[in-house]
This record gives sequence, structure tokens and C-alpha cells, in this order.
Amino acid sequence: MTASQTLQETLLAAIRTIPDYPKPGILFRDITTLLGDARAFRRSVDELVHPYAGSKIDKIAGIEARGFILGGAMAHQLSSGFVPIRKKGKLPYETVRVAYSLEYGLDEMEMHRDAVSPGERVILVDDLIATGGTAEGAVKLLRQMGAEIVAACFVIDLPDLGGRAKLEALGVSVNTLIAYQGD
Amino acid sequence: MTASQTLQETLLAAIRTIPDYPKPGILFRDITTLLGDARAFRRSVDELVHPYAGSKIDKIAGIEARGFILGGAMAHQLSSGFVPIRKKGKLPYETVRVAYSLEYGLDEMEMHRDAVSPGERVILVDDLIATGGTAEGAVKLLRQMGAEIVAACFVIDLPDLGGRAKLEALGVSVNTLIAYQGD
Repeated sequence: MTASQTLQETLLAAIRTIPDYPKPGILFRDITTLLGDARAFRRSVDELVHPYAGSKIDKIAGIEARGFILGGAMAHQLSSGFVPIRKKGKLPYETVRVAYSLEYGLDEMEMHRDAVSPGERVILVDDLIATGGTAEGAVKLLRQMGAEIVAACFVIDLPDLGGRAKLEALGVSVNTLIAYQGD
Repeated sequence: MTASQTLQETLLAAIRTIPDYPKPGILFRDITTLLGDARAFRRSVDELVHPYAGSKIDKIAGIEARGFILGGAMAHQLSSGFVPIRKKGKLPYETVRVAYSLEYGLDEMEMHRDAVSPGERVILVDDLIATGGTAEGAVKLLRQMGAEIVAACFVIDLPDLGGRAKLEALGVSVNTLIAYQGD
């Protein structure tokens, strides 16, 4: 990385692409190399929080598990609370639950019932948006508890898979840092 | 919370105790209420990074999943990279793996083979240390790849379960924010 690299150059250089993972024909965008690169990680978090500096954000809601890494950093930086949205059976207190669609079939995710209060301003975060099934489920959980979703943020957008359009159709503002076309 | 609360008062007020979870007789220390409290979360992260301000920390290694939330914030704050240590089968690239002991039986955890380089200065983080089996496994993985473990950090210490002593016997410096005796 040089000081003059654009955000896009920095991210492209830091994200690893793994062919044929998890199955033949898929290009897996591996963000762990970005997380491990101090400057690329810091720049990513800074870019993700930049639009909200100076606004009141009550909570960052992170989707398990990579959304926890970015979301923890964003919450600290914005002086917000952090809310984990987890796979079912992982949270110890009373939860609300929603089914969501994966590439193959359905799963369920949960949030603590008292994790957000009505009217709280929340930013949702995950590392990547593909079909948007997981993010759509998280939006439903947050709205069910009365949260105002200020935005949904992702480092990587795979626009061909339609997730961004799906969230925007739900009235959610979407903020991403880099898009891979044709994935 | 008032401005004059001590760290201990802040944490005791923010951590929720759930009786008989996950089984009768266990007091579960639920950190999600601390994470959701903007001031308590910020104060916790600030206290965790405070001893290392101004020193060179190459990587924060977070243990899945709650260690990701704290570790992401610490890595951003210290301008370090972040390394996820995950349950087996979750990482997409070549890994190193270690077995570790849980309360009942064994499990395995993994780290990417290229996640740390020999001589890198690493801080390990998780939300809580109990028997220390998970943290011990993470220490083994990091040392196997040549990392220098500067410290292992946890918000909560359950000293009666011996985890802190176990790590210290391995020559690891342990930093915790609050201890619950008798758990």
C-alpha cells in the first residue's frame, strides 16, 4: 500500500479471492487478508463510519460472525452500543427469531428481545452482501423491535446477486465499499 | 452510569447475570448488555487497549465469536491487523488446527496459516476466561506460527476456574477488567 492508493486499489489488493470455494465455480472473496492488514482494516472501518460521523447512532447491529469484527470497531468509533445478531441457539436471554433464506434452504437468526428499543437509530453491518437473505432477515428483526435502520453497510457488494436491490426495495439505505461484478 | 463511576461499578451494572444457564446451578455472565451500552462498551475497549497505547502491536487475535467484537474494536483503535481464531471448518484458506478442552470433551479451533508471521507481536482477546481451555488452544496456535504473545485480554475473569493461572503458567501475561469470585 502507498499513501496515494485509492480506496478501491487498497481493497482489491487486500481481499483474497479463493477459486472453487466452497464449491466448484465459486470465487470466494476472503476478507481475512483485509482484516489482517492493519492499514486496509483501519481504512475500511474509517470509510464505513465516515458518513455517520457527528450523527447520533444508538446501535451498530453486526451479523455473526464477520459482521462482529467490523461492527465492534464501528461501534467503538461512533460511541454506539453493539448488538449481535446470531445464529439460533447462541444467545442466552429472551430472543426474537426470524427465518431467512440461504442459497440452499432456510435457517434462523436471533436477536435479544431487549437489544434495541423502539425508535433507536441502528446501522446494520456485515462483511459482504450477496443475495441479501441474511441482511433481509436482520432488517426484519430490527424493525420488529421498532428500530430505525439508518443504513446497512458492507465492505463487499456482489451486485449481480441482487442483495443491494433487495434491501433498497425494503427502504433500507445501502453503503458498500467495493463491488465485484460478475460473481 | 455517572461520570464518577469506577470501572468496576460500570461493568457490574452493565453485565447481566442469567441464573441456571446453560444448565441448572450455573450463573451465566452475559456480556451482551455491556456491548449494547455505548458508554460501558467504549470504556471496556478503552481500558483493554490502554496498556498498549504507543507500543507496536501487529495483530489482535480474537476468539470466535464474542472475541471478534472486542478484538475488532481493539485492532482499529491500536491500528493493528485482526486475526480470527475460529471453530473448525469456518475458514476458507489453509489453516493450522489445534484441539482444546471444553467443560465436556474436546473441540478444535483453526487459524489461517498465513494469519501471523514469525516475530509478530500479538494480543489475544476474548470476552471471558473461565477454565482457559479455549485461550490455551489459541496460544498454542499463535506460538506454532511464531507469534510473540504480548498479552491475553478478557473483560471478565472467573479466577476460581483457573484459566488465568493456566495462561500465566504458559508465560502469557493476562489482563482482565473484572473478576467474579465464586462462579
